[in-house]
Amino acid sequence: MPAAGGLDFAYHMVKPQMEALDRLMSELLAADTPCVDEMLRYAGHYSGKRLRPALIFVVADLCGSLQDELVQLGAVVELIHMATLVHDDVLDQAKIRRNADAVNIRWNNKDAILLGDIMFARAIRLLVDVGNRRALERLTEAVAIICEGEIHQNQLSGHADVSEETYFKIIRQKTASLYAASCELGALLAGAAEDVVGAFHDFGESLGMAFQIIDDCLDLSGDEDVVGKSLGSDITNGKMTLPLIHLLARVGGEDRERIRAIIEDRRAGPQDVEFIRDLLVAHGSIEHATKRAGEFIETSLGRLRGLLPASSFTVVEELAGFVLHRQL
Amino acid sequence: MPAAGGLDFAYHMVKPQMEALDRLMSELLAADTPCVDEMLRYAGHYSGKRLRPALIFVVADLCGSLQDELVQLGAVVELIHMATLVHDDVLDQAKIRRNADAVNIRWNNKDAILLGDIMFARAIRLLVDVGNRRALERLTEAVAIICEGEIHQNQLSGHADVSEETYFKIIRQKTASLYAASCELGALLAGAAEDVVGAFHDFGESLGMAFQIIDDCLDLSGDEDVVGKSLGSDITNGKMTLPLIHLLARVGGEDRERIRAIIEDRRAGPQDVEFIRDLLVAHGSIEHATKRAGEFIETSLGRLRGLLPASSFTVVEELAGFVLHRQL
Repeated sequence: MPAAGGLDFAYHMVKPQMEALDRLMSELLAADTPCVDEMLRYAGHYSGKRLRPALIFVVADLCGSLQDELVQLGAVVELIHMATLVHDDVLDQAKIRRNADAVNIRWNNKDAILLGDIMFARAIRLLVDVGNRRALERLTEAVAIICEGEIHQNQLSGHADVSEETYFKIIRQKTASLYAASCELGALLAGAAEDVVGAFHDFGESLGMAFQIIDDCLDLSGDEDVVGKSLGSDITNGKMTLPLIHLLARVGGEDRERIRAIIEDRRAGPQDVEFIRDLLVAHGSIEHATKRAGEFIETSLGRLRGLLPASSFTVVEELAGFVLHRQL
Repeated sequence: MPAAGGLDFAYHMVKPQMEALDRLMSELLAADTPCVDEMLRYAGHYSGKRLRPALIFVVADLCGSLQDELVQLGAVVELIHMATLVHDDVLDQAKIRRNADAVNIRWNNKDAILLGDIMFARAIRLLVDVGNRRALERLTEAVAIICEGEIHQNQLSGHADVSEETYFKIIRQKTASLYAASCELGALLAGAAEDVVGAFHDFGESLGMAFQIIDDCLDLSGDEDVVGKSLGSDITNGKMTLPLIHLLARVGGEDRERIRAIIEDRRAGPQDVEFIRDLLVAHGSIEHATKRAGEFIETSLGRLRGLLPASSFTVVEELAGFVLHRQL
């Protein structure tokens, strides 16, 4: 299992690409119509560590070649990700994102829906400019899959009887698909052999699964000031995540009935959230979920270990370590 | 000016393509996840006359060649159009669409947002399969432009001081861009000369402008049972359309203040809608708007008249006549 780590080394490797990405994102988040321009610039705050573009660059670098068009591809992936965040915040009625008002609060739900649409559209327009057929196929497919996952998740909101299997299917669609495509395309555009491309696809998928599991843990046990967004929102929205699924299988009697009622009512107050947080601690549900996240990563690292030189594998481990041990 | 007309002749010309489109749409509006499948099938009702695909086919036929990939392109354009309808109904809080519950009513706003997203994504995924670069550029650009127009329109909701110029800019973006792209691509894929492609682009744009102006007239003066959707919604949503802009410039005193208050409050009741409808009749505002729609079409027809054989031009006139004189 990789040790706790930052992303310093990996980001340092691809510093010129991250800087070029920064400039390109500023150009993309602008418009002639003043009101649209203002919203796009504001939405720039939704872009954080830019982990998905960084993955594209790092994987391409490890595979031996950093082509110029990767920066555009990185922007495409980041824009798609940001668009899903904008729509997610409408769906979840979130109030805070990265320590500032969510777009749906700063403006309103309608504008946030349209802003998400425009970001999707610009991402795809840029993707067409990149002109790589497999990138076009993979990323447009990923967008459709992300939406399917989100719909499925939304339909299950307020339902307490969600299996681990269903949860994994949903997060594979809504989160892991974009990580998988990012890693796959990084390797592909660097001209890696098909088995390496496939291994990086699987690594990206596992990393995405782990990322989402940890995200769901942070929503239940994180520090709101550190994470920079509304927490406890999954409980309020009646959304069963891995720790909650673990917990519900382990409690009985009144506790069980109260958890079910909280999820089904979708109107949890601070006391309800506190009640569930205490039980999660008592039953080790966060630890269980974190362990499952680690297992996903372990499996996919195993395959890459045999395909990469030791120095490259260390970088991959660093990325995996960051995803597992992050506090935000 | 073309006479009132149906679409019988034009549709008959491209019957095999319309039937192939029908089959393809059924395939596209399905999914493995049952809840997503149910929503996609239901959304099939949002597809009506399929005017945009029909335009692609008819224009291509008039330009001398009906390629197989046009059917896919038709499905892309129709899916994009349907996706915007699904999102529009959320934005406008519409209740009825094509004589049935809107998706946001049958399910909820969240699911409708996601369904629109998935339809956009599938459209683009299919567009990638078509593999024509100019089609990719034009249609992904069109999606971005549509969203910009919608945001602009949304930002102006509740504002009574909207100029004709701003109104035309918005409908050019949100509606005419997709008509323009449809006609342009029909001509382009049939291998027409650049001046013919350009003339069809402009014809499509004018047709789209006219279509939207008539749509806005029908919202104010149509018959709800015939149109098959909630009417008067522009007034309720504080949206200034061409007839209202015309009216506001012509009334004074108390009437003017009451119209302004109705638009700015965005809470119009049936009496408010009735009050405005009576004034629209008294001031000939619907006739004025219909006349402007006719002028848009007249201008673009003029250019095509010189480029097409007489028999082809008759078909184009029939299409224009339908858009101008439709009651739904």
